Amino acid sequence: MKLLRYGPVGAEKPGLLDADGNIRDLSAHVADITGAVLDDASLERLRALDPASLPVVPGNPRLGACVSGFTKYMCIGLNYSDHADEMNLPYPEHPILFMKANSAIVGPDDDVVMPRGSTTTDWECELGVVIGKAAKYVSEEDALDHVAGYCICNDVSERTFQNKLTGQWTKGKSCDTFGPTGPWLVTRDEIADPQALAMSLDVNGKRMQTGNTATMIFTVRQIISHLSQLFTLHPGDVISTGTPPGVGGGMKPPTFLKAGDVMELRIEGLGSQRQEVRADD
Amino acid sequence: MKLLRYGPVGAEKPGLLDADGNIRDLSAHVADITGAVLDDASLERLRALDPASLPVVPGNPRLGACVSGFTKYMCIGLNYSDHADEMNLPYPEHPILFMKANSAIVGPDDDVVMPRGSTTTDWECELGVVIGKAAKYVSEEDALDHVAGYCICNDVSERTFQNKLTGQWTKGKSCDTFGPTGPWLVTRDEIADPQALAMSLDVNGKRMQTGNTATMIFTVRQIISHLSQLFTLHPGDVISTGTPPGVGGGMKPPTFLKAGDVMELRIEGLGSQRQEVRADD
Repeated sequence: MKLLRYGPVGAEKPGLLDADGNIRDLSAHVADITGAVLDDASLERLRALDPASLPVVPGNPRLGACVSGFTKYMCIGLNYSDHADEMNLPYPEHPILFMKANSAIVGPDDDVVMPRGSTTTDWECELGVVIGKAAKYVSEEDALDHVAGYCICNDVSERTFQNKLTGQWTKGKSCDTFGPTGPWLVTRDEIADPQALAMSLDVNGKRMQTGNTATMIFTVRQIISHLSQLFTLHPGDVISTGTPPGVGGGMKPPTFLKAGDVMELRIEGLGSQRQEVRADD
Repeated sequence: MKLLRYGPVGAEKPGLLDADGNIRDLSAHVADITGAVLDDASLERLRALDPASLPVVPGNPRLGACVSGFTKYMCIGLNYSDHADEMNLPYPEHPILFMKANSAIVGPDDDVVMPRGSTTTDWECELGVVIGKAAKYVSEEDALDHVAGYCICNDVSERTFQNKLTGQWTKGKSCDTFGPTGPWLVTRDEIADPQALAMSLDVNGKRMQTGNTATMIFTVRQIISHLSQLFTLHPGDVISTGTPPGVGGGMKPPTFLKAGDVMELRIEGLGSQRQEVRADD
Protein backbone atom coordinates (compact mmCIF):
# COMPACT_ATOMS: atom_id res chain seq x y z
CA MET A 1 0.00 0.00 0.00
CA LYS A 2 1.25 3.45 -0.95
CA LEU A 3 -0.08 6.17 1.33
CA LEU A 4 0.29 9.82 0.45
CA ARG A 5 -0.90 13.33 1.20
CA TYR A 6 -2.06 15.59 -1.59
CA GLY A 7 -3.24 19.17 -1.92
CA PRO A 8 -2.03 22.69 -1.07
CA VAL A 9 0.57 23.31 1.64
CA GLY A 10 -1.06 23.03 5.04
CA ALA A 11 -4.31 21.64 3.64
CA GLU A 12 -3.18 18.20 2.47
CA LYS A 13 -5.67 15.36 2.35
CA PRO A 14 -4.91 11.66 2.79
CA GLY A 15 -4.81 9.41 -0.22
CA LEU A 16 -3.43 6.22 -1.62
CA LEU A 17 -1.93 5.29 -4.95
CA ASP A 18 -3.81 2.54 -6.70
CA ALA A 19 -2.30 -0.13 -8.96
CA ASP A 20 -2.95 2.03 -12.03
CA GLY A 21 -1.14 5.03 -10.57
CA ASN A 22 -4.29 6.98 -9.70
CA ILE A 23 -4.54 8.89 -6.45
CA ARG A 24 -7.58 7.76 -4.48
CA ASP A 25 -9.04 9.96 -1.75
CA LEU A 26 -8.95 8.45 1.75
CA SER A 27 -10.64 11.41 3.49
CA ALA A 28 -13.73 9.39 4.31
CA HIS A 29 -11.64 6.89 6.24
CA VAL A 30 -8.81 8.82 7.95
CA ALA A 31 -8.31 12.50 8.71
CA ASP A 32 -4.65 12.52 7.70
CA ILE A 33 -1.63 10.24 7.36
CA THR A 34 -0.18 10.57 10.86
CA GLY A 35 1.14 8.21 13.49
CA ALA A 36 -2.44 7.65 14.65
CA VAL A 37 -3.21 5.57 11.54
CA LEU A 38 0.10 3.76 11.08
CA ASP A 39 -0.27 0.91 13.57
CA ASP A 40 -0.76 -2.54 12.10
CA ALA A 41 -4.50 -2.69 12.84
CA SER A 42 -5.20 0.68 11.23
CA LEU A 43 -3.13 -0.22 8.18
CA GLU A 44 -5.02 -3.50 7.92
CA ARG A 45 -8.32 -1.61 7.88
CA LEU A 46 -7.07 0.61 5.04
CA ARG A 47 -5.73 -2.41 3.18
CA ALA A 48 -9.16 -4.02 3.38
CA LEU A 49 -10.70 -1.16 1.39
CA ASP A 50 -11.30 -1.72 -2.30
CA PRO A 51 -9.31 1.08 -3.97
CA ALA A 52 -11.86 1.12 -6.80
CA SER A 53 -14.48 2.21 -4.25
CA LEU A 54 -12.51 5.34 -3.34
CA PRO A 55 -12.93 8.60 -5.29
CA VAL A 56 -10.24 9.19 -7.92
CA VAL A 57 -8.50 12.52 -7.37
CA PRO A 58 -8.53 14.34 -10.71
CA GLY A 59 -5.64 16.24 -12.23
CA ASN A 60 -2.14 16.20 -10.96
CA PRO A 61 -2.22 17.64 -7.45
CA ARG A 62 0.81 18.70 -5.44
CA LEU A 63 2.02 16.04 -3.02
CA GLY A 64 2.85 16.92 0.58
CA ALA A 65 5.27 15.02 2.77
CA CYS A 66 3.86 11.49 2.99
CA VAL A 67 3.44 11.65 6.76
CA SER A 68 2.48 14.47 9.12
CA GLY A 69 2.30 15.14 12.84
CA PHE A 70 5.56 13.42 13.77
CA THR A 71 7.33 14.37 17.00
CA LYS A 72 10.79 14.22 15.48
CA TYR A 73 12.60 13.83 12.18
CA MET A 74 15.90 12.09 12.82
CA CYS A 75 18.83 11.69 10.50
CA ILE A 76 21.79 9.34 10.59
CA GLY A 77 25.15 10.65 9.41
CA LEU A 78 27.98 8.83 7.65
CA ASN A 79 26.11 5.53 7.43
CA TYR A 80 27.32 4.07 4.11
CA SER A 81 30.64 2.24 4.04
CA ASP A 82 31.33 3.19 0.41
CA HIS A 83 30.61 6.84 1.24
CA ALA A 84 32.91 6.72 4.30
CA ASP A 85 35.59 5.06 2.16
CA GLU A 86 35.21 7.72 -0.51
CA MET A 87 35.59 10.47 2.12
CA ASN A 88 38.48 8.56 3.74
CA LEU A 89 36.66 8.70 7.08
CA PRO A 90 36.62 5.94 9.72
CA TYR A 91 33.35 4.09 10.25
CA PRO A 92 31.46 5.45 13.28
CA GLU A 93 31.24 3.26 16.36
CA HIS A 94 27.54 4.04 16.85
CA PRO A 95 24.94 5.59 14.52
CA ILE A 96 25.55 9.36 14.30
CA LEU A 97 22.28 11.09 15.09
CA PHE A 98 21.17 14.60 14.35
CA MET A 99 17.76 16.23 14.10
CA LYS A 100 16.27 18.02 11.13
CA ALA A 101 13.72 20.61 12.30
CA ASN A 102 10.15 19.50 11.62
CA SER A 103 9.61 22.91 10.01
CA ALA A 104 12.04 21.96 7.21
CA ILE A 105 9.88 19.12 5.90
CA VAL A 106 8.14 19.59 2.54
CA GLY A 107 6.59 17.57 -0.25
CA PRO A 108 8.66 15.37 -2.58
CA ASP A 109 8.45 17.73 -5.54
CA ASP A 110 8.36 21.09 -3.77
CA ASP A 111 11.02 23.67 -4.56
CA VAL A 112 14.19 23.58 -2.47
CA VAL A 113 14.98 27.16 -1.46
CA MET A 114 18.58 28.11 -0.71
CA PRO A 115 18.63 30.59 2.18
CA ARG A 116 20.17 34.01 1.63
CA GLY A 117 23.93 33.83 1.54
CA SER A 118 24.02 30.11 0.79
CA THR A 119 26.73 29.00 -1.63
CA THR A 120 27.14 25.39 -0.48
CA THR A 121 23.73 23.73 -0.61
CA ASP A 122 24.12 19.99 -1.23
CA TRP A 123 21.96 16.91 -1.85
CA GLU A 124 21.66 13.57 -0.02
CA CYS A 125 19.37 10.81 -1.26
CA GLU A 126 18.31 8.66 1.71
CA LEU A 127 16.00 5.83 2.71
CA GLY A 128 13.39 7.13 5.16
CA VAL A 129 11.88 4.85 7.78
CA VAL A 130 8.48 5.77 9.24
CA ILE A 131 7.65 4.37 12.66
CA GLY A 132 4.28 2.64 13.04
CA LYS A 133 4.33 1.38 16.62
CA ALA A 134 6.04 3.11 19.58
CA ALA A 135 9.55 1.74 20.14
CA LYS A 136 11.43 1.89 23.47
CA TYR A 137 14.22 -0.51 24.42
CA VAL A 138 13.57 -2.59 21.32
CA SER A 139 15.86 -5.44 20.21
CA GLU A 140 17.32 -5.59 16.73
CA GLU A 141 15.33 -8.77 16.20
CA ASP A 142 12.01 -7.02 16.88
CA ALA A 143 12.90 -3.66 15.37
CA LEU A 144 11.14 -3.99 12.01
CA ASP A 145 7.83 -4.76 13.74
CA HIS A 146 7.85 -1.08 14.69
CA VAL A 147 8.12 0.15 11.11
CA ALA A 148 5.02 1.31 9.25
CA GLY A 149 6.86 1.73 5.99
CA TYR A 150 9.52 3.46 3.93
CA CYS A 151 9.91 6.54 1.78
CA ILE A 152 12.52 8.69 0.04
CA CYS A 153 14.12 11.59 1.92
CA ASN A 154 16.36 14.25 0.45
CA ASP A 155 18.52 15.36 3.40
CA VAL A 156 19.36 18.72 1.82
CA SER A 157 22.36 20.25 3.59
CA GLU A 158 23.99 23.68 3.64
CA ARG A 159 27.61 22.68 4.25
CA THR A 160 28.82 26.05 5.51
CA PHE A 161 25.94 26.31 7.97
CA GLN A 162 26.54 22.67 8.93
CA ASN A 163 30.28 22.86 9.51
CA LYS A 164 31.41 26.48 9.88
CA LEU A 165 28.90 28.16 12.20
CA THR A 166 30.36 26.87 15.48
CA GLY A 167 27.54 24.49 15.67
CA GLN A 168 26.11 21.12 15.58
CA TRP A 169 25.11 19.88 12.13
CA THR A 170 21.47 20.79 12.62
CA LYS A 171 22.08 24.41 11.49
CA GLY A 172 22.79 23.24 7.96
CA LYS A 173 20.08 20.59 7.92
CA SER A 174 17.07 22.54 9.15
CA CYS A 175 16.66 25.35 6.62
CA ASP A 176 13.09 25.74 5.36
CA THR A 177 12.37 23.24 2.51
CA PHE A 178 15.46 21.12 3.29
CA GLY A 179 13.43 17.96 3.92
CA PRO A 180 11.54 16.69 0.84
CA THR A 181 9.79 13.50 2.02
CA GLY A 182 7.78 11.11 -0.12
CA PRO A 183 6.26 10.71 -2.68
CA TRP A 184 4.47 8.00 -0.71
CA LEU A 185 4.83 5.91 2.38
CA VAL A 186 5.23 2.35 1.09
CA THR A 187 4.06 -0.03 3.79
CA ARG A 188 6.64 -2.52 4.96
CA ASP A 189 4.85 -5.58 3.54
CA GLU A 190 5.84 -4.31 0.06
CA ILE A 191 9.55 -4.04 0.87
CA ALA A 192 10.95 -7.54 1.25
CA ASP A 193 14.36 -6.36 2.43
CA PRO A 194 15.12 -2.73 3.32
CA GLN A 195 18.84 -3.57 3.01
CA ALA A 196 18.66 -4.34 -0.71
CA LEU A 197 17.29 -1.20 -2.36
CA ALA A 198 19.05 0.51 -5.24
CA MET A 199 19.07 4.31 -5.02
CA SER A 200 20.18 7.22 -7.15
CA LEU A 201 20.21 11.00 -7.38
CA ASP A 202 20.61 13.07 -10.54
CA VAL A 203 21.25 16.80 -10.84
CA ASN A 204 20.14 18.29 -14.16
CA GLY A 205 19.97 14.78 -15.58
CA LYS A 206 23.50 13.83 -14.60
CA ARG A 207 23.90 10.91 -12.22
CA MET A 208 25.57 12.08 -9.00
CA GLN A 209 24.72 9.40 -6.44
CA THR A 210 24.49 5.69 -7.07
CA GLY A 211 24.09 3.41 -4.12
CA ASN A 212 22.32 0.54 -2.46
CA THR A 213 21.05 0.24 1.08
CA ALA A 214 23.12 -2.96 1.27
CA THR A 215 26.20 -0.88 2.12
CA MET A 216 24.72 0.77 5.22
CA ILE A 217 27.12 0.57 8.16
CA PHE A 218 24.19 0.35 10.58
CA THR A 219 21.11 -1.43 9.28
CA VAL A 220 17.56 -0.20 9.81
CA ARG A 221 17.19 -2.81 12.54
CA GLN A 222 20.31 -1.62 14.32
CA ILE A 223 19.39 2.05 14.05
CA ILE A 224 15.90 1.55 15.48
CA SER A 225 17.20 -0.59 18.31
CA HIS A 226 19.97 1.89 19.16
CA LEU A 227 17.75 4.98 19.10
CA SER A 228 15.06 3.24 21.13
CA GLN A 229 17.55 2.86 23.99
CA LEU A 230 17.79 6.66 24.14
CA PHE A 231 14.16 7.74 23.77
CA THR A 232 10.77 6.63 22.52
CA LEU A 233 10.30 6.46 18.77
CA HIS A 234 6.67 7.50 18.34
CA PRO A 235 4.30 6.47 15.55
CA GLY A 236 4.84 8.78 12.60
CA ASP A 237 8.43 9.64 13.56
CA VAL A 238 10.83 9.55 10.61
CA ILE A 239 14.42 8.31 10.48
CA SER A 240 16.44 9.25 7.41
CA THR A 241 19.15 6.66 7.37
CA GLY A 242 22.17 8.25 5.70
CA THR A 243 23.42 8.77 2.17
CA PRO A 244 25.54 6.75 -0.27
CA PRO A 245 28.55 8.14 -2.20
CA GLY A 246 28.33 11.11 -4.50
CA VAL A 247 27.38 14.20 -2.48
CA GLY A 248 28.58 17.51 -3.91
CA GLY A 249 30.77 18.35 -0.93
CA GLY A 250 32.82 15.19 -1.53
CA MET A 251 33.61 15.98 -5.17
CA LYS A 252 36.91 17.35 -6.41
CA PRO A 253 36.38 20.22 -6.67
CA PRO A 254 33.29 20.44 -4.41
CA THR A 255 30.15 21.08 -6.46
CA PHE A 256 27.03 22.65 -5.02
CA LEU A 257 23.50 23.50 -6.11
CA LYS A 258 22.58 26.74 -7.82
CA ALA A 259 19.25 28.34 -8.64
CA GLY A 260 17.52 26.55 -11.50
CA ASP A 261 19.08 23.15 -10.84
CA VAL A 262 16.80 20.12 -10.78
CA MET A 263 17.32 17.16 -8.44
CA GLU A 264 15.76 13.77 -9.16
CA LEU A 265 15.87 10.99 -6.56
CA ARG A 266 14.90 7.35 -6.91
CA ILE A 267 14.82 4.40 -4.53
CA GLU A 268 13.77 0.95 -5.69
CA GLY A 269 10.11 0.34 -4.87
CA LEU A 270 9.62 3.79 -3.36
CA GLY A 271 9.07 5.97 -6.43
CA SER A 272 10.86 9.21 -7.21
CA GLN A 273 11.19 12.84 -6.20
CA ARG A 274 11.95 15.91 -8.29
CA GLN A 275 12.84 19.32 -6.87
CA GLU A 276 13.78 22.56 -8.50
CA VAL A 277 16.27 24.72 -6.65
CA ARG A 278 15.76 28.42 -6.18
CA ALA A 279 17.40 31.21 -4.23
CA ASP A 280 15.51 33.04 -1.51
CA ASP A 281 14.87 36.64 -2.49
CA MET B 1 0.05 37.72 31.74
CA LYS B 2 1.02 34.21 32.77
CA LEU B 3 -0.31 31.56 30.40
CA LEU B 4 -0.21 27.90 31.29
CA ARG B 5 -1.56 24.48 30.46
CA TYR B 6 -3.06 22.27 33.18
CA GLY B 7 -4.46 18.78 33.42
CA PRO B 8 -3.42 15.21 32.63
CA VAL B 9 -0.69 14.42 30.11
CA GLY B 10 -2.05 14.79 26.60
CA ALA B 11 -5.31 16.37 27.78
CA GLU B 12 -4.04 19.73 29.03
CA LYS B 13 -6.36 22.74 28.98
CA PRO B 14 -5.35 26.37 28.60
CA GLY B 15 -5.32 28.63 31.62
CA LEU B 16 -3.84 31.73 33.11
CA LEU B 17 -2.53 32.55 36.54
CA ASP B 18 -4.37 35.45 38.18
CA ALA B 19 -2.86 38.02 40.52
CA ASP B 20 -3.82 35.91 43.54
CA GLY B 21 -2.11 32.80 42.21
CA ASN B 22 -5.29 31.03 41.12
CA ILE B 23 -5.44 29.13 37.87
CA ARG B 24 -8.27 30.44 35.69
CA ASP B 25 -9.68 28.33 32.87
CA LEU B 26 -9.25 29.81 29.37
CA SER B 27 -11.00 26.97 27.53
CA ALA B 28 -13.91 29.18 26.49
CA HIS B 29 -11.52 31.54 24.73
CA VAL B 30 -8.71 29.44 23.21
CA ALA B 31 -8.38 25.72 22.46
CA ASP B 32 -4.81 25.48 23.72
CA ILE B 33 -1.69 27.58 24.28
CA THR B 34 -0.03 27.17 20.88
CA GLY B 35 1.61 29.44 18.35
CA ALA B 36 -1.84 30.20 16.95
CA VAL B 37 -2.71 32.33 20.00
CA LEU B 38 0.68 33.94 20.68
CA ASP B 39 0.65 36.79 18.18
CA ASP B 40 0.26 40.29 19.64
CA ALA B 41 -3.40 40.64 18.63
CA SER B 42 -4.41 37.32 20.18
CA LEU B 43 -2.50 38.11 23.37
CA GLU B 44 -4.21 41.49 23.51
CA ARG B 45 -7.61 39.81 23.33
CA LEU B 46 -6.69 37.54 26.23
CA ARG B 47 -5.28 40.46 28.19
CA ALA B 48 -8.60 42.29 27.77
CA LEU B 49 -10.45 39.53 29.64
CA ASP B 50 -11.26 40.15 33.28
CA PRO B 51 -9.57 37.23 35.07
CA ALA B 52 -12.30 37.34 37.73
CA SER B 53 -14.79 36.41 35.00
CA LEU B 54 -12.96 33.16 34.23
CA PRO B 55 -13.70 29.95 36.14
CA VAL B 56 -11.24 29.19 38.95
CA VAL B 57 -9.67 25.76 38.50
CA PRO B 58 -10.04 23.96 41.82
CA GLY B 59 -7.39 21.91 43.53
CA ASN B 60 -3.79 21.72 42.51
CA PRO B 61 -3.73 20.27 39.00
CA ARG B 62 -0.65 19.04 37.22
CA LEU B 63 0.89 21.59 34.87
CA GLY B 64 1.92 20.66 31.34
CA ALA B 65 4.59 22.40 29.32
CA CYS B 66 3.39 26.01 29.01
CA VAL B 67 3.24 25.87 25.21
CA SER B 68 2.27 23.10 22.79
CA GLY B 69 2.31 22.45 19.07
CA PHE B 70 5.73 23.97 18.38
CA THR B 71 7.64 22.89 15.27
CA LYS B 72 11.01 22.84 17.01
CA TYR B 73 12.60 23.13 20.43
CA MET B 74 16.03 24.67 20.00
CA CYS B 75 18.81 24.89 22.54
CA ILE B 76 21.90 27.07 22.65
CA GLY B 77 25.10 25.56 24.06
CA LEU B 78 27.92 27.23 26.02
CA ASN B 79 26.22 30.62 26.13
CA TYR B 80 27.30 32.02 29.50
CA SER B 81 30.71 33.63 29.82
CA ASP B 82 31.09 32.64 33.48
CA HIS B 83 30.21 29.05 32.59
CA ALA B 84 32.71 29.02 29.70
CA ASP B 85 35.35 30.52 32.03
CA GLU B 86 34.60 27.87 34.66
CA MET B 87 35.02 25.11 32.06
CA ASN B 88 38.11 26.83 30.64
CA LEU B 89 36.52 26.81 27.17
CA PRO B 90 36.83 29.56 24.55
CA TYR B 91 33.71 31.61 23.80
CA PRO B 92 31.96 30.36 20.64
CA GLU B 93 32.08 32.56 17.57
CA HIS B 94 28.37 32.00 16.81
CA PRO B 95 25.55 30.61 18.95
CA ILE B 96 25.93 26.82 19.21
CA LEU B 97 22.60 25.27 18.19
CA PHE B 98 21.24 21.82 18.85
CA MET B 99 17.72 20.42 18.86
CA LYS B 100 15.92 18.74 21.71
CA ALA B 101 13.32 16.30 20.37
CA ASN B 102 9.79 17.62 20.81
CA SER B 103 8.93 14.25 22.36
CA ALA B 104 11.22 15.06 25.32
CA ILE B 105 9.14 18.03 26.49
CA VAL B 106 7.15 17.66 29.73
CA GLY B 107 5.56 19.79 32.42
CA PRO B 108 7.59 21.87 34.87
CA ASP B 109 7.02 19.53 37.83
CA ASP B 110 6.86 16.18 36.05
CA ASP B 111 9.31 13.44 37.01
CA VAL B 112 12.59 13.33 35.15
CA VAL B 113 13.24 9.71 34.19
CA MET B 114 16.81 8.55 33.68
CA PRO B 115 16.93 6.07 30.79
CA ARG B 116 18.20 2.55 31.43
CA GLY B 117 21.95 2.51 31.81
CA SER B 118 22.21 6.23 32.55
CA THR B 119 24.82 7.18 35.15
CA THR B 120 25.53 10.74 34.03
CA THR B 121 22.22 12.62 33.94
CA ASP B 122 22.78 16.32 34.59
CA TRP B 123 20.78 19.54 35.08
CA GLU B 124 20.80 22.87 33.21
CA CYS B 125 18.60 25.78 34.29
CA GLU B 126 17.88 27.98 31.27
CA LEU B 127 15.83 30.94 30.11
CA GLY B 128 13.30 29.79 27.51
CA VAL B 129 12.12 32.14 24.79
CA VAL B 130 8.78 31.43 23.09
CA ILE B 131 8.27 32.86 19.62
CA GLY B 132 5.04 34.80 19.02
CA LYS B 133 5.42 36.05 15.45
CA ALA B 134 7.20 34.23 12.62
CA ALA B 135 10.82 35.37 12.30
CA LYS B 136 12.91 35.10 9.11
CA TYR B 137 15.92 37.32 8.36
CA VAL B 138 15.18 39.46 11.41
CA SER B 139 17.56 42.15 12.67
CA GLU B 140 18.79 42.23 16.25
CA GLU B 141 16.95 45.50 16.66
CA ASP B 142 13.59 43.97 15.75
CA ALA B 143 14.16 40.56 17.30
CA LEU B 144 12.20 41.00 20.53
CA ASP B 145 9.08 41.98 18.58
CA HIS B 146 8.95 38.30 17.62
CA VAL B 147 8.89 37.05 21.21
CA ALA B 148 5.60 36.10 22.86
CA GLY B 149 7.20 35.56 26.25
CA TYR B 150 9.59 33.69 28.46
CA CYS B 151 9.65 30.60 30.64
CA ILE B 152 12.01 28.31 32.54
CA CYS B 153 13.55 25.30 30.77
CA ASN B 154 15.53 22.51 32.38
CA ASP B 155 17.80 21.27 29.59
CA VAL B 156 18.33 17.87 31.23
CA SER B 157 21.35 16.16 29.67
CA GLU B 158 22.76 12.64 29.71
CA ARG B 159 26.47 13.42 29.37
CA THR B 160 27.57 9.97 28.18
CA PHE B 161 24.85 9.88 25.52
CA GLN B 162 25.74 13.48 24.62
CA ASN B 163 29.50 13.06 24.29
CA LYS B 164 30.41 9.38 24.00
CA LEU B 165 27.97 7.84 21.50
CA THR B 166 29.73 9.03 18.33
CA GLY B 167 27.08 11.60 17.93
CA GLN B 168 25.86 15.03 17.95
CA TRP B 169 24.69 16.33 21.34
CA THR B 170 21.04 15.64 20.60
CA LYS B 171 21.36 12.00 21.74
CA GLY B 172 21.90 13.13 25.33
CA LYS B 173 19.36 15.95 25.18
CA SER B 174 16.32 14.18 23.73
CA CYS B 175 15.57 11.40 26.23
CA ASP B 176 11.91 11.23 27.24
CA THR B 177 11.14 13.77 30.04
CA PHE B 178 14.40 15.70 29.48
CA GLY B 179 12.61 18.97 28.72
CA PRO B 180 10.60 20.37 31.66
CA THR B 181 9.14 23.65 30.37
CA GLY B 182 7.13 26.16 32.39
CA PRO B 183 5.45 26.66 34.83
CA TRP B 184 3.97 29.47 32.73
CA LEU B 185 4.68 31.53 29.68
CA VAL B 186 5.19 35.06 31.00
CA THR B 187 4.35 37.51 28.23
CA ARG B 188 7.16 39.83 27.26
CA ASP B 189 5.48 42.98 28.57
CA GLU B 190 6.14 41.66 32.08
CA ILE B 191 9.87 41.19 31.53
CA ALA B 192 11.49 44.59 31.26
CA ASP B 193 14.91 43.21 30.33
CA PRO B 194 15.51 39.54 29.48
CA GLN B 195 19.23 40.15 30.03
CA ALA B 196 18.86 40.94 33.74
CA LEU B 197 17.19 37.89 35.27
CA ALA B 198 18.63 36.07 38.27
CA MET B 199 18.43 32.29 38.04
CA SER B 200 19.24 29.31 40.23
CA LEU B 201 19.01 25.54 40.46
CA ASP B 202 19.08 23.47 43.65
CA VAL B 203 19.47 19.71 43.99
CA ASN B 204 18.04 18.30 47.21
CA GLY B 205 17.97 21.81 48.64
CA LYS B 206 21.62 22.54 47.89
CA ARG B 207 22.36 25.43 45.55
CA MET B 208 24.17 24.14 42.46
CA GLN B 209 23.67 26.86 39.85
CA THR B 210 23.62 30.59 40.48
CA GLY B 211 23.56 32.89 37.50
CA ASN B 212 22.08 35.84 35.73
CA THR B 213 21.08 36.22 32.10
CA ALA B 214 23.35 39.31 32.07
CA THR B 215 26.35 37.02 31.43
CA MET B 216 24.99 35.47 28.23
CA ILE B 217 27.59 35.51 25.47
CA PHE B 218 24.86 35.90 22.84
CA THR B 219 21.79 37.88 23.93
CA VAL B 220 18.22 36.84 23.16
CA ARG B 221 18.21 39.47 20.42
CA GLN B 222 21.37 38.09 18.85
CA ILE B 223 20.21 34.48 19.05
CA ILE B 224 16.85 35.19 17.39
CA SER B 225 18.47 37.24 14.64
CA HIS B 226 21.14 34.60 13.99
CA LEU B 227 18.73 31.64 13.89
CA SER B 228 16.30 33.54 11.68
CA GLN B 229 19.01 33.76 9.00
CA LEU B 230 19.01 29.95 8.87
CA PHE B 231 15.31 29.08 8.99
CA THR B 232 11.92 30.41 10.00
CA LEU B 233 11.20 30.61 13.70
CA HIS B 234 7.50 29.78 13.89
CA PRO B 235 5.00 30.97 16.50
CA GLY B 236 5.21 28.63 19.48
CA ASP B 237 8.79 27.56 18.78
CA VAL B 238 10.98 27.51 21.88
CA ILE B 239 14.63 28.54 22.25
CA SER B 240 16.37 27.48 25.45
CA THR B 241 19.24 29.91 25.70
CA GLY B 242 22.02 28.14 27.56
CA THR B 243 23.00 27.56 31.16
CA PRO B 244 25.07 29.45 33.75
CA PRO B 245 27.84 27.88 35.88
CA GLY B 246 27.28 24.93 38.16
CA VAL B 247 26.30 21.91 36.08
CA GLY B 248 27.19 18.53 37.58
CA GLY B 249 29.54 17.55 34.77
CA GLY B 250 31.71 20.58 35.52
CA MET B 251 32.21 19.76 39.19
CA LYS B 252 35.32 18.20 40.65
CA PRO B 253 34.60 15.36 40.88
CA PRO B 254 31.68 15.33 38.41
CA THR B 255 28.37 14.90 40.21
CA PHE B 256 25.26 13.50 38.56
CA LEU B 257 21.63 12.86 39.42
CA LYS B 258 20.38 9.71 41.06
CA ALA B 259 16.92 8.31 41.66
CA GLY B 260 15.11 10.22 44.38
CA ASP B 261 16.92 13.50 43.82
CA VAL B 262 14.83 16.66 43.62
CA MET B 263 15.70 19.57 41.32
CA GLU B 264 14.29 23.06 41.93
CA LEU B 265 14.76 25.82 39.37
CA ARG B 266 13.98 29.51 39.63
CA ILE B 267 14.24 32.45 37.27
CA GLU B 268 13.33 35.96 38.36
CA GLY B 269 9.77 36.79 37.29
CA LEU B 270 9.18 33.36 35.75
CA GLY B 271 8.29 31.23 38.78
CA SER B 272 9.83 27.90 39.68
CA GLN B 273 10.01 24.25 38.65
CA ARG B 274 10.43 21.15 40.81
CA GLN B 275 11.23 17.70 39.43
CA GLU B 276 11.84 14.39 41.13
CA VAL B 277 14.31 12.09 39.45
CA ARG B 278 13.62 8.43 38.94
CA ALA B 279 15.22 5.54 37.12
CA ASP B 280 13.41 3.81 34.26
CA ASP B 281 12.49 0.27 35.21
